Amino acid sequence: MNEAIKNMLTRRSCKSFKSDAVSEEIIDQIIEAGLYAPSGMNRQESIIIAVTDKAVRDKLSKLNAKYDWAKRPDPFYNAPVVLCVLASRNIHTTVEDGSLVMENLMLAAHSLGLGSCWIHRAKEVFEDPEGIEILEKLGISADEYVGVGNCVIGYPDKMNTADKPRKENRVYKI
Amino acid sequence: MNEAIKNMLTRRSCKSFKSDAVSEEIIDQIIEAGLYAPSGMNRQESIIIAVTDKAVRDKLSKLNAKYDWAKRPDPFYNAPVVLCVLASRNIHTTVEDGSLVMENLMLAAHSLGLGSCWIHRAKEVFEDPEGIEILEKLGISADEYVGVGNCVIGYPDKMNTADKPRKENRVYKI
Repeated sequence: MNEAIKNMLTRRSCKSFKSDAVSEEIIDQIIEAGLYAPSGMNRQESIIIAVTDKAVRDKLSKLNAKYDWAKRPDPFYNAPVVLCVLASRNIHTTVEDGSLVMENLMLAAHSLGLGSCWIHRAKEVFEDPEGIEILEKLGISADEYVGVGNCVIGYPDKMNTADKPRKENRVYKI
Repeated sequence: MNEAIKNMLTRRSCKSFKSDAVSEEIIDQIIEAGLYAPSGMNRQESIIIAVTDKAVRDKLSKLNAKYDWAKRPDPFYNAPVVLCVLASRNIHTTVEDGSLVMENLMLAAHSLGLGSCWIHRAKEVFEDPEGIEILEKLGISADEYVGVGNCVIGYPDKMNTADKPRKENRVYKI
């Protein structure tokens, strides 16, 4: 089995992170992998907001919790880095394109020894007045971009290493 | 740069395939990578229909062309293998989950020296009476599953090796 496939089969979502910072060099590698995800008609109409500032990270976590039915105090599981993926509303593959970026981010993080997890509710957060304010400060139009997912990243505290089996009967051959 | 990231940065969509068959062993490796994609709440409610039968492949291509505004005679670009990804309508992350499977399929294919391309209109095809018939023959409920994407796979005839630049200004840091 080659390294790329091995990386896909061994990635698991991490739900408990250490507070330790992740170097910008590593974050940049992960972001670059995300930018190379395919997109409908190669339009590349997705963007990544890389958040490492503690105050903004905490604000986004609080906003996320507002829309979390499970009402977790920190839906980001203590991760110090959040890569918010948004995509243009003006294409036909908004969610598809954003999701492909998310997968590359998660896979790249894992390949570099980091834990990651897709945290949902990016749509709700960036349609909330406080989320829109964050976008506007960055010069991003909330009318154009919609949140697809938040990829939280960091060094795993407790990694879920249990080899959860894949569900059966998901493959059909003709 | 590690092999997993290198694989992500060098993958490109292939739009011209040789007719040469792909071995079942290779197809199975690609499918397995797809099954290990993350999913919302780890529900794994996506399925893969692996099509290698020429008649069914041609039928799916024809059905796809029916909904293709570009009216390509073969929207599958001569690829001999089509991996149709569908996901349950009864979850909140139907398109997201299916898209994550698609990315793993494309990345795994590339890591094994194969070309791949996301071909859209899986939704339309499997909501068409002829598409529903294919699902029903496999015992798949068209009420439950919706098409997300078709990953066509094969040996590249002409590979797009041009290093198309990434668009600028897609990353924001806070």
